[in-house]
Amino acid sequence: MKLYDFGPAANAKRVRMFLAEKGIEIPIVEVQVRDGALFEEPYRTMNPFAVVPFLELDDGTVIGESMAICKYLEELHPEPSLLGRDARERALIEMWNRRLEIDGLMPMIHAVRNTNPLFAGRVVPGTRTGLAQLPEIAERGKAMLMILLERIDPALKDNAFIAGERFSIADITGFFMMNAAKILDVPFAEHFPNVTRWHADLASRPSAEA
Amino acid sequence: MKLYDFGPAANAKRVRMFLAEKGIEIPIVEVQVRDGALFEEPYRTMNPFAVVPFLELDDGTVIGESMAICKYLEELHPEPSLLGRDARERALIEMWNRRLEIDGLMPMIHAVRNTNPLFAGRVVPGTRTGLAQLPEIAERGKAMLMILLERIDPALKDNAFIAGERFSIADITGFFMMNAAKILDVPFAEHFPNVTRWHADLASRPSAEA
Repeated sequence: MKLYDFGPAANAKRVRMFLAEKGIEIPIVEVQVRDGALFEEPYRTMNPFAVVPFLELDDGTVIGESMAICKYLEELHPEPSLLGRDARERALIEMWNRRLEIDGLMPMIHAVRNTNPLFAGRVVPGTRTGLAQLPEIAERGKAMLMILLERIDPALKDNAFIAGERFSIADITGFFMMNAAKILDVPFAEHFPNVTRWHADLASRPSAEA
Repeated sequence: MKLYDFGPAANAKRVRMFLAEKGIEIPIVEVQVRDGALFEEPYRTMNPFAVVPFLELDDGTVIGESMAICKYLEELHPEPSLLGRDARERALIEMWNRRLEIDGLMPMIHAVRNTNPLFAGRVVPGTRTGLAQLPEIAERGKAMLMILLERIDPALKDNAFIAGERFSIADITGFFMMNAAKILDVPFAEHFPNVTRWHADLASRPSAEA
């Protein structure tokens, strides 16, 4: 098994934090994403969606999408569980992870790609189209994040983690969502004390550096 | 167990098609979403994210997010499997489902909400904010869908379904993504014959009417 990775990519970092929390070691191949390596062979055929990370199994199967990779690895290495220990807990962690992704992390990723000059000409992940960077998308993304944070701040007053008292994959999603919010100067610290405490706690975990 | 539902909502339809394919029957409570019922009790407390569908377990636990609901139900009723029969198949179905959601269904949902007058004033799901409908988001959503369809059309030449030869939850996601594309007049039929065949096949399944 090999993990194809690129250090700075938010979704690649999500998988590395997951591996570190679980104590799993996999050989890593660093892909020169900024040199366009994903659009050339062998990656073009292996991974036509042209994004990192992706996992190659020993039989040649390629699994893309960071959450699909984490789920596969959780099945092989159930402990410590980051996706839930029974059907009910798995459903609640899935629910929280999706809420943070759909209403937070993805709007933040689109906001970064639609404003940072580094992403000019490749605003949609895995593409090199000529689509323009649209500031409206960045503003809408920040507004969506503020709505989400207002909803989760009360829950984080009584819970150490987003899905309750145990750390889960939803916290990993939340950590990278909040890192992007910080880069984009979203004023969360002024409004959401519990979110701010949660983000600081997550940042202090050794896995945050993975 | 009870499923809180609203007939026309795309994500509610996804869960109903899943139930129909699996032959599961659950008592359904129809919520008067357009009258604002989700912002009033008892729903406000049960489901603070204010979107349908959501599932209430007999112990009072509320599971939101359509894919979290489907995963929970698949654990209770494994056959016929729509999420995969082993770790590798589950990972590949998860990968395809997420690709279609992130690059297709969600851009289409945002495109509809940012153009259809029905969604004026509630452009972000589960909110009643004053955020404006932004045509830029609708145009970007359509452009993202065309990129996705160009990527999946070749794979659908040789495969009956998006994840291979078996129908899966990723096809359910794809069906509602394509229904939205049709409503938004995305010109897929002119460019993508295999996608068009796939969409017609999915529409002919009895579960498509659920």
